[in-house]
Amino acid sequence: MIPFKLTEELVTEIEQLIENQKDTALVALMEDLHYADVAEIIDELDEDEATYIIKLLESDKTSDVLTELDDDVREGILSNLSPKEIAEELGELDTDDAADIVGELPNDIIQEVISEIEDREHAKDIVDLLRYDEYTAGGLMAKELVKVKEDWNVLTCVKEMRAQAENVTRVHSIYVVDADDKLMGRLSLKDLLTTSTTTHIKDIYIPKVDRVGVNEKPEEVAKIMSKYDLEAIPVVDEIGRLVGRITIDDIVDVIREEADKDYQMAAGISQDVEADDSIWQLTRARLPWLFLGLIGGVGAAAIMGGFEEMISKHAILFFFTPLIAAMAGNVGVQSSAIIVQGLANDDLKGSVGDRLVKEMLLALLNGVVLAAVLLVFTWLWKGDFLTALAISISLIAVILVAGFIGTFIPLFLHKKNIDPAIATGPFITTSNDIFGILIYFWIAKVVLGI
Amino acid sequence: MIPFKLTEELVTEIEQLIENQKDTALVALMEDLHYADVAEIIDELDEDEATYIIKLLESDKTSDVLTELDDDVREGILSNLSPKEIAEELGELDTDDAADIVGELPNDIIQEVISEIEDREHAKDIVDLLRYDEYTAGGLMAKELVKVKEDWNVLTCVKEMRAQAENVTRVHSIYVVDADDKLMGRLSLKDLLTTSTTTHIKDIYIPKVDRVGVNEKPEEVAKIMSKYDLEAIPVVDEIGRLVGRITIDDIVDVIREEADKDYQMAAGISQDVEADDSIWQLTRARLPWLFLGLIGGVGAAAIMGGFEEMISKHAILFFFTPLIAAMAGNVGVQSSAIIVQGLANDDLKGSVGDRLVKEMLLALLNGVVLAAVLLVFTWLWKGDFLTALAISISLIAVILVAGFIGTFIPLFLHKKNIDPAIATGPFITTSNDIFGILIYFWIAKVVLGI
Repeated sequence: MIPFKLTEELVTEIEQLIENQKDTALVALMEDLHYADVAEIIDELDEDEATYIIKLLESDKTSDVLTELDDDVREGILSNLSPKEIAEELGELDTDDAADIVGELPNDIIQEVISEIEDREHAKDIVDLLRYDEYTAGGLMAKELVKVKEDWNVLTCVKEMRAQAENVTRVHSIYVVDADDKLMGRLSLKDLLTTSTTTHIKDIYIPKVDRVGVNEKPEEVAKIMSKYDLEAIPVVDEIGRLVGRITIDDIVDVIREEADKDYQMAAGISQDVEADDSIWQLTRARLPWLFLGLIGGVGAAAIMGGFEEMISKHAILFFFTPLIAAMAGNVGVQSSAIIVQGLANDDLKGSVGDRLVKEMLLALLNGVVLAAVLLVFTWLWKGDFLTALAISISLIAVILVAGFIGTFIPLFLHKKNIDPAIATGPFITTSNDIFGILIYFWIAKVVLGI
Repeated sequence: MIPFKLTEELVTEIEQLIENQKDTALVALMEDLHYADVAEIIDELDEDEATYIIKLLESDKTSDVLTELDDDVREGILSNLSPKEIAEELGELDTDDAADIVGELPNDIIQEVISEIEDREHAKDIVDLLRYDEYTAGGLMAKELVKVKEDWNVLTCVKEMRAQAENVTRVHSIYVVDADDKLMGRLSLKDLLTTSTTTHIKDIYIPKVDRVGVNEKPEEVAKIMSKYDLEAIPVVDEIGRLVGRITIDDIVDVIREEADKDYQMAAGISQDVEADDSIWQLTRARLPWLFLGLIGGVGAAAIMGGFEEMISKHAILFFFTPLIAAMAGNVGVQSSAIIVQGLANDDLKGSVGDRLVKEMLLALLNGVVLAAVLLVFTWLWKGDFLTALAISISLIAVILVAGFIGTFIPLFLHKKNIDPAIATGPFITTSNDIFGILIYFWIAKVVLGI
């Protein structure tokens, strides 16, 4: 089996086949490809070509392709399909993927699309899912699952399960509910198969089963599933009724997106952008953070302007401002990254106070080592011990403050239920730049007795 | 079901139970807890207490607990166990987890531990796994899987499968191999159950199955599994023989670690450290990057020293160096983060040239907007248009260069098969600081005609 590789030749070949309307050749070529690979190809085509392919292929394949496409490509294609065509695609999808697509449709056609879905039960499930916030367990879950009632006997159970399993791609667990649909536990397939057909389910089910509430945040679901190595988890509503199921493949996406988001925030990029987004989208994600940096820089300039009288006698102090600012920024980013990551992976233990004391000790250790090196260098370079000492002492102070800010701010934001990741990138570097420079000139002033 | 929450009270209670040797109470308390929760508790205990718990509980539970512990805690406990006790734990684990633990043991006891494992087949599988590099598919895979030979008939197949499935926690797929153990395809459980018992497997198996080679990198395996939504993937050796299987829960860990690593690199933290590591470990991970920043700062100071004669006439230029350095750093980090993330998620399309042109356009757009704001501000502040112009033109130039470096370096490193993530954090900010300041003073010199 040769792994699929997207090449420019392949894209050109497909574009020519589309242009010449060689439908048989196109179908034959796509037939052997996985839907994720077809999606990769379609992402490279223009809207008309992409629509042509989607209309050409069977909807049991194209429905999966649609879920894998870039958002803007999918939007373009869907705008060219009739409500009936969209409904056919949705009919082939699991309810969670179908609901995600419906959620992206223009409001004025949603009703028509839903009414065109043939399987009314499926349509109802999709509509149910629409009312959950995208960023909750409810927004992630699918309605497809296998559930049996506790007062059934094994025979009824097996019969019902067979019917249900038809709609479920992967059966991870058999959930047991009571007459009110409340989740009671799960059933082991082995127990089911080795028990007499007249036994009641309530006598053989396992009453312990991990679960999450519909309003749980996706990151929390991800933490629970990866901590307990679960491949699927049932979702219950406020009164404990089984309403859906989340599978590990959706959680893999959550983990990736979450990590990407934290990383982007740390790099000063807001919103979920990719390298292939438009220059306009990228600018909107990047410019505000650069603007913040600009304001910080202007602030730093203003502070230095206030110490202008020092410049004639101690120009060397000004040469070291970029160093001080850079070190303050670096230490701040390091400290905040450790905290944000610890919070994300849930492995921060101990109190805020302990955490700060530890970071201060760490900053002091690093600061003293770096300051000693800088002291020797500056002294040898300029031959002025007092100035060298002033710069080095400032460096230690700046590193201490930067470490404190970098540790405290994300912990504080987390306590206030604000995403601590916003305190990592330009925000922390900019504020540390300003504080750093301010502290630097103050200390220099004191040490040099100006 | 109340989700488990680690509290200080619980830890204190357990510590007291250990001190008073209340074994029955301890066993009762731990019995209802998931092994991942027991591991969380043990991570908080000291080595003797931790060892006490591990020796007290049954090894079918403690073996799983061991795999979930922090590395240093596990190392401490294992050093207190006899080879026979360790072997008992290993006997309960899947081969991949067992091999990971053996890999951490001191060399002089490995042989004895292995020889104490009762199930010799299991011991052989563990030894087999030891020869694979940790950072390959071979290092991730487990030997536990269900495989059938293509020349068996359905009856033999079902009988053999039953025996094999005993050792496999979750059967995701039934793999079909030929007489030489070469992976031929997979078997659908439905086909198996609906075909006459005398039919040969070779007539009913599905010849298409995704696979990875033993030497594939974990990141690649993660990409393939998440792209194709696989819950397990078979691993083949150089001549196509089926040697193991990787399941999605191991891949979830890879994705997390990979994302954490890239993020840490961007924040200037090397090695895989956590907030709860010792100050010494954290210093080793952080100090080298700070040192790099220090060298950069000294370089910047030296450059500014070279322009000392300008300081008397144009002190304001010096006030803006932190701004220039910060903007160069921010733009560099943004550009490199976008590229590194695109490379990690495999969604960078088009040539290096296209990528650079796009980044230059983006940098120009951002640069012009920011420079215009800065121009107006500086002009109003100091009333000197020419100086304001010099600073603003420099800002555009610096942003362009920073964007270029931030885009080019990671792409270049990736081409040379070096992890591009090293080019994100302090490396990019430091080099951009220096280039930025150099460009700034040059341009200022030209514009101001000094």
